[in-house]
Amino acid sequence: MASLEEQKKAVEFNRESLESTLKRRFFYAPAFELYGGVSGLFDYGPAGCAFQANVVDQWRKHFILEEDMLEVDCTMLTPYEVLKTSGHVDKFSDWMSKDPKTGEIFRADHLVEEVLESRLKGDKQARGLGSEIDGVEEDADKKKRKKKVKQITAVKLDDELVKEYETVLAKIDGYSGEELGELIEKYQIKNPGNGNDLEPPRAFNLMFETAIGPSGQYKGYLRPETAQGQFLNFNKLLDFNNNKIPFASASIGKSFRNEISPRAGLLRVREFLMAEIEHFVDPEDKSHSKFDEVKDIKLKFLPKNVQEAGSTKLQELSVGDAVSSGMVDNQTLGYFIARIYLFLMKIGVDPNRLRFRQHMSNEMAHYACDCWDAELQTSYGWIECVGCADRSAYDLTVHSKKTGEKLVVRQKLDTPKEVVQWELSLTKKLFGPKFRKDAPLVEKYLTNLSQEELESKAKEMGDNGKIVFQIDGMQGDIELDEKFIKIENVKRIHHVREFTPSVIEPSFGIGRIIYAVFEHSFWARPEDSARTVMSFKPTVAPSKVLLVPLSNNKEFEPIIAKISKTLKKEQIPFKVDDSGVSIGKRYARNDELGTPFGITIDFDSVKDDSVTLRERDSTKQVRGSIEQILRAIKEITYEGSTWEKSTSELPEFVSQSE
Amino acid sequence: MASLEEQKKAVEFNRESLESTLKRRFFYAPAFELYGGVSGLFDYGPAGCAFQANVVDQWRKHFILEEDMLEVDCTMLTPYEVLKTSGHVDKFSDWMSKDPKTGEIFRADHLVEEVLESRLKGDKQARGLGSEIDGVEEDADKKKRKKKVKQITAVKLDDELVKEYETVLAKIDGYSGEELGELIEKYQIKNPGNGNDLEPPRAFNLMFETAIGPSGQYKGYLRPETAQGQFLNFNKLLDFNNNKIPFASASIGKSFRNEISPRAGLLRVREFLMAEIEHFVDPEDKSHSKFDEVKDIKLKFLPKNVQEAGSTKLQELSVGDAVSSGMVDNQTLGYFIARIYLFLMKIGVDPNRLRFRQHMSNEMAHYACDCWDAELQTSYGWIECVGCADRSAYDLTVHSKKTGEKLVVRQKLDTPKEVVQWELSLTKKLFGPKFRKDAPLVEKYLTNLSQEELESKAKEMGDNGKIVFQIDGMQGDIELDEKFIKIENVKRIHHVREFTPSVIEPSFGIGRIIYAVFEHSFWARPEDSARTVMSFKPTVAPSKVLLVPLSNNKEFEPIIAKISKTLKKEQIPFKVDDSGVSIGKRYARNDELGTPFGITIDFDSVKDDSVTLRERDSTKQVRGSIEQILRAIKEITYEGSTWEKSTSELPEFVSQSE
Repeated sequence: MASLEEQKKAVEFNRESLESTLKRRFFYAPAFELYGGVSGLFDYGPAGCAFQANVVDQWRKHFILEEDMLEVDCTMLTPYEVLKTSGHVDKFSDWMSKDPKTGEIFRADHLVEEVLESRLKGDKQARGLGSEIDGVEEDADKKKRKKKVKQITAVKLDDELVKEYETVLAKIDGYSGEELGELIEKYQIKNPGNGNDLEPPRAFNLMFETAIGPSGQYKGYLRPETAQGQFLNFNKLLDFNNNKIPFASASIGKSFRNEISPRAGLLRVREFLMAEIEHFVDPEDKSHSKFDEVKDIKLKFLPKNVQEAGSTKLQELSVGDAVSSGMVDNQTLGYFIARIYLFLMKIGVDPNRLRFRQHMSNEMAHYACDCWDAELQTSYGWIECVGCADRSAYDLTVHSKKTGEKLVVRQKLDTPKEVVQWELSLTKKLFGPKFRKDAPLVEKYLTNLSQEELESKAKEMGDNGKIVFQIDGMQGDIELDEKFIKIENVKRIHHVREFTPSVIEPSFGIGRIIYAVFEHSFWARPEDSARTVMSFKPTVAPSKVLLVPLSNNKEFEPIIAKISKTLKKEQIPFKVDDSGVSIGKRYARNDELGTPFGITIDFDSVKDDSVTLRERDSTKQVRGSIEQILRAIKEITYEGSTWEKSTSELPEFVSQSE
Repeated sequence: MASLEEQKKAVEFNRESLESTLKRRFFYAPAFELYGGVSGLFDYGPAGCAFQANVVDQWRKHFILEEDMLEVDCTMLTPYEVLKTSGHVDKFSDWMSKDPKTGEIFRADHLVEEVLESRLKGDKQARGLGSEIDGVEEDADKKKRKKKVKQITAVKLDDELVKEYETVLAKIDGYSGEELGELIEKYQIKNPGNGNDLEPPRAFNLMFETAIGPSGQYKGYLRPETAQGQFLNFNKLLDFNNNKIPFASASIGKSFRNEISPRAGLLRVREFLMAEIEHFVDPEDKSHSKFDEVKDIKLKFLPKNVQEAGSTKLQELSVGDAVSSGMVDNQTLGYFIARIYLFLMKIGVDPNRLRFRQHMSNEMAHYACDCWDAELQTSYGWIECVGCADRSAYDLTVHSKKTGEKLVVRQKLDTPKEVVQWELSLTKKLFGPKFRKDAPLVEKYLTNLSQEELESKAKEMGDNGKIVFQIDGMQGDIELDEKFIKIENVKRIHHVREFTPSVIEPSFGIGRIIYAVFEHSFWARPEDSARTVMSFKPTVAPSKVLLVPLSNNKEFEPIIAKISKTLKKEQIPFKVDDSGVSIGKRYARNDELGTPFGITIDFDSVKDDSVTLRERDSTKQVRGSIEQILRAIKEITYEGSTWEKSTSELPEFVSQSE
């Protein structure tokens, strides 16, 4: 007989079959289906919701409890000013092109990609080459997107043009709106459905906008990430942590993204659960005290230099080597990459379908110094499920600059340090008469100048005898001479070091991870491909045990009540299925829900309190007393034991029921 | 020495002192404080967030696991049409009056209330009666609101007018916008700050509005409750439950309410966590199979007849008597009231500050048949923290009617039943030519008519030879004669009963409950009122144990590491405080965080592995081996034991450190 691992792979994966199981067992469903649905919005049913709750619970234990992180719960409603400062108002957008005749809206980069790809395919057909020769793996979403461009017409292109198209496609994630507009014009890209001309791409901000309060004047957004709330509470968190660094905050909650055209089920949605960590660390010392515990873990990496050379070949090496070779920027980043890996293993990700891909220089945010995504392979391609970025001091710096509040760490120096620095002194009594109510604004602007800015202003003063500048919210130029302000280069002895910490940010898209685990856990029994199974790990399975009386005979009720009571007391989630259908059907239904254990109650059970325990994947059964069986379930589910170990002393039970 | 209960009451409760503790220990704080804050939005810090997570965990165990409920997680973004159907677009609003000169906006009912109350107070002063004679308890929020009306001027009013004012105040929650406008005019109510005239009250919808998708045309809201998502998934949930009824769904998540003027801290906010249950039950049989388990529980009730007679005297009786006397409408409602009580006890609500208040006829939603609020007493008055309403079949009925999808339960009848009913038959082939694309709309309209509507249409047809009606989305009258439609009264044998279930809805405002528990848990040590304590139950305390080495001597590190490892393995949340300050200071800090246990590590510990365990409230200490101490902590925190029981065999330890 084939091994279990072989059996699991015998029937080829089929996404329609998975989706049908997920729908039939109400893991999730389009939200508002009764009203026709809204794309990009999904509801989790009982099975999906319990699975999600268990994944979140594991996450909380693995990261927050284990690493002693400070969890916060910040609001989703966020005022305009905060997201203006963070850069989201200006930059968190996609480019959209509209067909002015039909009102249809296309995401510009997706459209260019689709059309050029279909032309390349047509070219290959015209050259007599099948599309199958294209051995390169497809990215997420592409398969579905392609459906839009229905007709592939076999038209041969110039060799030059083929090369041009390929270059464009390789760089598709990096184009500005203007550049996308030029491509659309240059390559005569039209609405694929009707051939209409499209308007030039316009930036579409992906945040949901709303008004806070009754006046309608106070603009706000739904947060696009949980990170900003954590940054804004930095001072309070540092204080809570007795002013010690490094420390991490963490947050689990919904974020929002008004996608232009959501697709690919749970992979690209408008409302989603995130779990984000902001680990604050000394920029001059990014070592990690627990790095040794993870340094020998081997992982599959896809570094940027490999990608930039046009390859996707994975490099397998230990986290220790990845850091010491400089491939991963620092220990803390490496530590989190390893911890992310351990977490994903805990909840049932297939290690062979996980890789850590480094961002290439052109895709990384300008402030980040290194960024790695944990990507999970699914039928939609490799999906970014966890990001792990070193955001440097960017966020704390911009918020501090905007609000005038310091967001820094102060550390007493063991040996005082001599520092040469720029300092300014203001003749404050002159500011009131000159600037009236704006005086505090001007003072705040000046006292917030960085060392570099002070140096340049000092030079300006030296050259021109005055400095000239503008301030947000004040009209015209402001001029000040030496009567108002002096900027000097002075020597100081520092007893305290003051610095803005760097932030390492592991950021988890829970819905994407859940969908990938669904794919990684799904298989069909070789003897009947309609009998599908979700092989969830017991820790995250929505329910742990199914109680199955042989029939709905009243005789079984006391023993069901007895077992139920114990399971409730032990807080082990379970279900009773005393419906009239056959035991085999009840187990099949339950295999689809991923319940790892079944307890069968028969007439012998009534006599001697013995019951049968069934393991979902192997369908193996053993017999034992209620106490023995429940102990085995508890050990395997919560205490890290295995089926083999915990049932080794129980006799096998042969049944006809499967 | 005074008993612990007496000590806890020795220092009078002081809200400022509580607020200062909550702020200092970062339980929660105004969101976006760095940017000046946004009223009605709060962030939970590490202590508050852990407390909230523990309360939610207890809720999930107490309700979802214990009662085998179907948890769902639905989206917050909700399309216009759903909330139009549910009634929220038209009715979920407060009345606001604007001062056109300053732009200030007042909630009209609050303003009328405030102004009349201050005039009555002025009248009492003029009559030489202090305001103290007013022995009636104040409602939530009133105290704060009063600050707005700053000056109480001693003006005597006519006796008649005093009576009028009192009548208005008693009915203040029931006025329409027009009526509020009349009161404002009649009693010459102005902007209290400047005496300006106010515009007539306008309805202000309390939902946050946004646009879904790139066109900006698709209107949506942030949900005002989690209930609608549960109703819309009714058919899927019923199917998941093998078509059996009764069953309950449940949901934990954020909801939103764009308050006109938020106040009273966590009690009236714009974004809040709810936990809601929708229990679907046969409208003809609202008995509950587990009612016997709770029937003897005695509770304090405030029924509507008592309130309508102008009293707030509580009636203490058992849930069984409350239901059998008809005071509580049915067993299922009574069962949930008792379960709500048990939950609130579990998380630390003071039973003497809990009452169940029945809605009076004029405050109940028109579709509800009974509704009881669990109210918790705080320094802001009695606060509605849990609602428990029988919503009847209202929601399922309106959504079904709007979408044309049946939301019903079908039950096989044991004995078939003869039923006389109205039935219609349509000559469908005539509908296409007459109505073209609207034909399906007309057919759907007709097939969805209720028995009552069919009876009336049959009569119309008999009288006029035709029926006339209008349909949303079609212009003008639609006329049909007997060629198109026949409506007949026929006898049928029913083998299946089809019905829309009633819904019993227990709905929890988690933030309000948390705030009330904060007040109920807070006290100051009589010997030093600056030493405040949060006496949280161990199950919900943010952290369970504080590890305190005598000093930051390196010698203690191995034993701290050893204990930490065990605590992590057992998943018991703990903190280490090895900061330099005195043990007494460290314990005082920790008492404010509500950590129930402290473990002190001293030089004897290094020698013999013994440690001291300190109980937060009594500050009693016992000595034992690490193993003994950890076992005691585990028993008390998770296994329902008590300090007395679990430490009875450990010797007392006398220390100077407090």
